[in-house]
Amino acid sequence: MNIITKLFGIKYPIIQAGMIWCSGWKLASAVSNAGGLGLIGSGSMHPETFLEHVRKCKNATSKPFGVNVPLLYPQIDEIINIILEEGVKIVFTSAGSPKKYTSVLKEKGITVVHVVSGSKFAVKCQEAGVDAVVAEGFEAGGHNGIDETTTMALIPMVRESINLPLIAAGGIGTGAGMLAAFALGADGVQVGTRFAASEESSAHIDFKKMIINSVEGDTKLMLKNIGPVRLLKNKFYKDVEKAEETCASVDGLKELLGKGRSKKGMFEGDLEEGELEIGQVSSLVKEIQPAGKVIEEIVKEYNEALGKLKMVK
Amino acid sequence: MNIITKLFGIKYPIIQAGMIWCSGWKLASAVSNAGGLGLIGSGSMHPETFLEHVRKCKNATSKPFGVNVPLLYPQIDEIINIILEEGVKIVFTSAGSPKKYTSVLKEKGITVVHVVSGSKFAVKCQEAGVDAVVAEGFEAGGHNGIDETTTMALIPMVRESINLPLIAAGGIGTGAGMLAAFALGADGVQVGTRFAASEESSAHIDFKKMIINSVEGDTKLMLKNIGPVRLLKNKFYKDVEKAEETCASVDGLKELLGKGRSKKGMFEGDLEEGELEIGQVSSLVKEIQPAGKVIEEIVKEYNEALGKLKMVK
Repeated sequence: MNIITKLFGIKYPIIQAGMIWCSGWKLASAVSNAGGLGLIGSGSMHPETFLEHVRKCKNATSKPFGVNVPLLYPQIDEIINIILEEGVKIVFTSAGSPKKYTSVLKEKGITVVHVVSGSKFAVKCQEAGVDAVVAEGFEAGGHNGIDETTTMALIPMVRESINLPLIAAGGIGTGAGMLAAFALGADGVQVGTRFAASEESSAHIDFKKMIINSVEGDTKLMLKNIGPVRLLKNKFYKDVEKAEETCASVDGLKELLGKGRSKKGMFEGDLEEGELEIGQVSSLVKEIQPAGKVIEEIVKEYNEALGKLKMVK
Repeated sequence: MNIITKLFGIKYPIIQAGMIWCSGWKLASAVSNAGGLGLIGSGSMHPETFLEHVRKCKNATSKPFGVNVPLLYPQIDEIINIILEEGVKIVFTSAGSPKKYTSVLKEKGITVVHVVSGSKFAVKCQEAGVDAVVAEGFEAGGHNGIDETTTMALIPMVRESINLPLIAAGGIGTGAGMLAAFALGADGVQVGTRFAASEESSAHIDFKKMIINSVEGDTKLMLKNIGPVRLLKNKFYKDVEKAEETCASVDGLKELLGKGRSKKGMFEGDLEEGELEIGQVSSLVKEIQPAGKVIEEIVKEYNEALGKLKMVK
């Protein structure tokens, strides 16, 4: 029992990241049933789809679960209303200011966590009254901060700057990674990539296979001029690389990205033309496993790794 | 006592990185006298200067010390000859193939360590017969790998790929960072940035002050087309940024960099026009301390941080 398990009422301080196209009710409920905190990722859902996932998740688990809400989402007010009406108890917000919705949610007794990429933003979260902060490093998949601060450097800095419970994200997919995050001062970890490749993930099976077959150097942070995002290298990645090497304009990059590319890649399995968002730790993920087994292995590895550490004299 | 302290005959598994313009005999001997492994950085030295530093270091400490040799150094054969003639016992090689000099050095009974940025290169080191490997992540200062793999992701991957003693580098400047590196599977750590700002570092005092005053986001990996290097943001950095934003050619970037910029910045203290190489962890370094005090604090922090870690049940 630590400050994070207490805050959420869960068994293990392991949070499954609320990811687009990967984390619907199946994944979230599986993680929560296994003692972690499952999150439904609303970012890729229409409000009616989101509502369906929340209801199905409530039916699938009696354990606490939460939702992730990117605050720049166009139909954000509808999503917030569903959260309030359905009595969702834990909300992770990201991609936007924590000031706008934290008090609204807190008034209803909801536990609010905000995702940041730097200490400055963590301090703003504390001022806005959130209950905990996720600090996500450069190695994380998907959208990412502009300072490119890695988890190793970021966690101690955020730890110094706020008093809130701190969840580390980015590069964490194993028990050794979790132990490293705790060594750096985190109270919990958020795991994305490994759960994106889990059985209950709603990602396309071909994308999951590509994740488990990926090796070191197969991801890179791209599209820095329109919003940095870590991509798995495929044909679309190469098109972006070429455009960036020739100094394509912001408009040119936006046009190249177009609409619906992440759905095409991650959900529909178009591994050539789709946008495939994944973290550096993908090269450590070698199997498509049930989410419950992932939790079990991470906990076991964490304890084994801790058992091996010795004092320095 | 672990595999690294045994290999080098030192007290603590902490290696001071052999850095250009920072690590001469004063720093190396101070670190070795404090129980770590000090390295003379030959990369910024003419052979006769290097010889002088090796001799002075031998006089200043009876403890083991080593040298760092970038293998692409133009007068590499002269440097190797000095190492052999002066009886230097520990050599860290970097920036080049470990195949060329490892056997020459090993035949003379020298302990050889090679620095890599990825598992592929670590495997080549093992094949070449080195005694240990330094794996350095994206957050490290100075020259860096093209895959941009962070320490958090890199160390477990290298750990899986080789059986050799493994030293982690990049983002490590505190005891918490050292503990995280050990959690990830490292047997030792190499610390650069914090020692660059130490009292015995030969860096210019104004550069040291800039390091301890730097904040999150003040460094960035630049010049990727001519050799990625992590720089502290100053006027020269901004010139590079502008050139890269407008797709300057490789020749254009080389011309902009010119010759002698790192000396100008790090050694002569020209904080505007100089090239200032430093790691992301600079924002965690807050004081110019004696190197011995740095070692003492890292060991103390490591043990304290380990004492706080609890099993997860």
